[in-house]
Amino acid sequence: MSLIVMKFGGTSVGDIERIKSAASKVAAEITRGNKVAVVVSAMAGVTDQLIGYCRAISPRYDRGEHDAVVATGEQVTAGLMALALHQRGLNARSWQAWQARLITDKTHAKARIVDMQADAVRRHIENGEVAVMAGFQGVTADERITTLGRGGSDTSAVALAVALKADRCDIYTDVDGVYTTDPRIVAKAHKMGRVSYEEMLELASLGAKVLQVRSVEMAMRYRMPVQVLSTFANDIGSDLPGTLVTEGDENMESNLVTGIAYTKDQARITLLHVPDHPGVVAAIFGPLAKAGVDIDMIVQSGSGDGKSADTTLTVGKDEADRAMKILEEERAKIGYEDLVCNMNVTKISLVGAGMRSHAGVAAKMFEVLAEKGINILVIETSEINISVLISSEYTELALRALHSAYGLDAA
Amino acid sequence: MSLIVMKFGGTSVGDIERIKSAASKVAAEITRGNKVAVVVSAMAGVTDQLIGYCRAISPRYDRGEHDAVVATGEQVTAGLMALALHQRGLNARSWQAWQARLITDKTHAKARIVDMQADAVRRHIENGEVAVMAGFQGVTADERITTLGRGGSDTSAVALAVALKADRCDIYTDVDGVYTTDPRIVAKAHKMGRVSYEEMLELASLGAKVLQVRSVEMAMRYRMPVQVLSTFANDIGSDLPGTLVTEGDENMESNLVTGIAYTKDQARITLLHVPDHPGVVAAIFGPLAKAGVDIDMIVQSGSGDGKSADTTLTVGKDEADRAMKILEEERAKIGYEDLVCNMNVTKISLVGAGMRSHAGVAAKMFEVLAEKGINILVIETSEINISVLISSEYTELALRALHSAYGLDAA
Repeated sequence: MSLIVMKFGGTSVGDIERIKSAASKVAAEITRGNKVAVVVSAMAGVTDQLIGYCRAISPRYDRGEHDAVVATGEQVTAGLMALALHQRGLNARSWQAWQARLITDKTHAKARIVDMQADAVRRHIENGEVAVMAGFQGVTADERITTLGRGGSDTSAVALAVALKADRCDIYTDVDGVYTTDPRIVAKAHKMGRVSYEEMLELASLGAKVLQVRSVEMAMRYRMPVQVLSTFANDIGSDLPGTLVTEGDENMESNLVTGIAYTKDQARITLLHVPDHPGVVAAIFGPLAKAGVDIDMIVQSGSGDGKSADTTLTVGKDEADRAMKILEEERAKIGYEDLVCNMNVTKISLVGAGMRSHAGVAAKMFEVLAEKGINILVIETSEINISVLISSEYTELALRALHSAYGLDAA
Repeated sequence: MSLIVMKFGGTSVGDIERIKSAASKVAAEITRGNKVAVVVSAMAGVTDQLIGYCRAISPRYDRGEHDAVVATGEQVTAGLMALALHQRGLNARSWQAWQARLITDKTHAKARIVDMQADAVRRHIENGEVAVMAGFQGVTADERITTLGRGGSDTSAVALAVALKADRCDIYTDVDGVYTTDPRIVAKAHKMGRVSYEEMLELASLGAKVLQVRSVEMAMRYRMPVQVLSTFANDIGSDLPGTLVTEGDENMESNLVTGIAYTKDQARITLLHVPDHPGVVAAIFGPLAKAGVDIDMIVQSGSGDGKSADTTLTVGKDEADRAMKILEEERAKIGYEDLVCNMNVTKISLVGAGMRSHAGVAAKMFEVLAEKGINILVIETSEINISVLISSEYTELALRALHSAYGLDAA
């Protein structure tokens, strides 16, 4: 007998019928002899509606009250899921974060979990009850309601699995696993049977939206196996039908590249002809850091005359306006000649544990893109990924060419 | 400086604009130099929607989970009200029942308040914060969410006022006070400036929907002045513009009849020719009591032959089917000849503290109704009220005639 945490996302509990259908998956898991804890998101659309209410009152709303409002979405689903389980003759009860003691820091709207005391939840599960926890929520040590940020229910689920010492955390979503790249763009993309924590972390960080980054970080830290599978398609009777995120298998002949992620969420900002003297980098990045603007890629290139350089950086699209304004205000101090912002860029990232021991991955990438006439704007590498920024219009072309070049196309 | 609890009902916070408008009333109260705690209901329609979700999953839903779902309506409004107060430059925070320690028993869906430890709320108010408490909710000693039943936010407000030792509890609603009778039916009905706890309790119990009965009971027990006033019409600058529910003034020349309540929520059940022997009454009412059917009026009348009698009782319309079924099952034991149910009845009640010391109130009532040709089906009296059951089609005629006969018509 295993203890499984089953997490259902917003589309999986999008209406009453879907909640009933998710309950049938829970019942099936129990019929197989397992104990189950469930974590639910808000019904699809509800969170946005609640955020809309807050914005309608004030565009600069207090995040603490925002959290009190928005956390109700998950509370409703948790109660309804418990009712749907009762309807199937199962014992079940809902748990809000404050009841389950999922303790976070005070960073409202993107709180981080600091502790989970799951003793009470565990006791109820051991007494034959299905625990249904509202995802996305937390509570501070001084009893204020918090939320964990977009996709936070994934993290709730992993945290509950860790606290309960569960055997596995199953994430039910609207895709049936993790793909080598976005199958809506690359028809030959295929579902991976398993992927290592490290690779999944890179893929999630670099744009694959299937799991919240922090949930993967937590799963990796506590070595909790996470399975991604579809609420709608996967046959629960089959053996691990989705994608299992788990330990990397050292003996496995790993592919050079495991998957290709991409994101259109970034904007490129270029400062032209920045004088090349000590302190200028600090003059650029200091004010941005102070304002809390997250910078992703950075590249500095000499202009040839040895006296000035161009500096390029990327920021989230939603922060581009703010970053531009700050840099304009700092123009005199930095001393650049011109400032350019480009919103039509895509970051494409190759991810694979095999990159560690294989040279030539980057070279091949540049070759493939050059062959297709695609200009590379920025390059960035880490131990197990290599990312390039390109013009957005080439996104599909680049993804398909790279997917094929690295042998990822489905047979 | 006074401490005022201001409670806003569902229509008073029915949408974002109305929440903002309610917040402006709070701000005005603070400008007058008072400290304020606010209690809010769910936005109009939200509670019914949430109950609809529960019913869609199972008609026989678990009331504990129902409460977890339904209590979110008030949680949302409390957060939004706090945001609207921030927007006006006020310090404010929302309080859920579990945060404010409004402790109830475990009778889910109609829980009773057993304790309120308002120390934390009071501390925040003393530090210049407006406390915004979600109405309708409670929490059990073992941390489950409860709700207080329809209209429960009135009771939440009075409980908070009592716990905070507030000077007054103002109930903002969609009517501008308590009327001598329903002004939609009797054009000459007029708003009472003040009414005693006892009279208000009778009026509320007998059908006046302006305050939840339990809120009046609690206000009476703790001698908390309650003011009923309109969110939409009353001028907050004027002196007590609504109806003040407070101590009865012994010296006041009180009207014989203060107000006239009515309800169409009851059904009349008559058992014809019940044998007149010991134990038969127990045979009728025992099974009904066992099934939890609340019985209101009861009358037994001899049939003339001294051997059998007709027994008439009234129950809530929504329990009539169940009561009829039970009585049919018990037919052999009770031994009645026929069983009749009439859903088209109205109970009309005269209420007035002056009845205690004045005879002839009932006689006048029977006269007035007889003059109009209205047949009285059942009569019931208590110390300060007299109620009759009549056929529903005469409701308006009876109300207008009685309102006029007892000198209640507005000049």
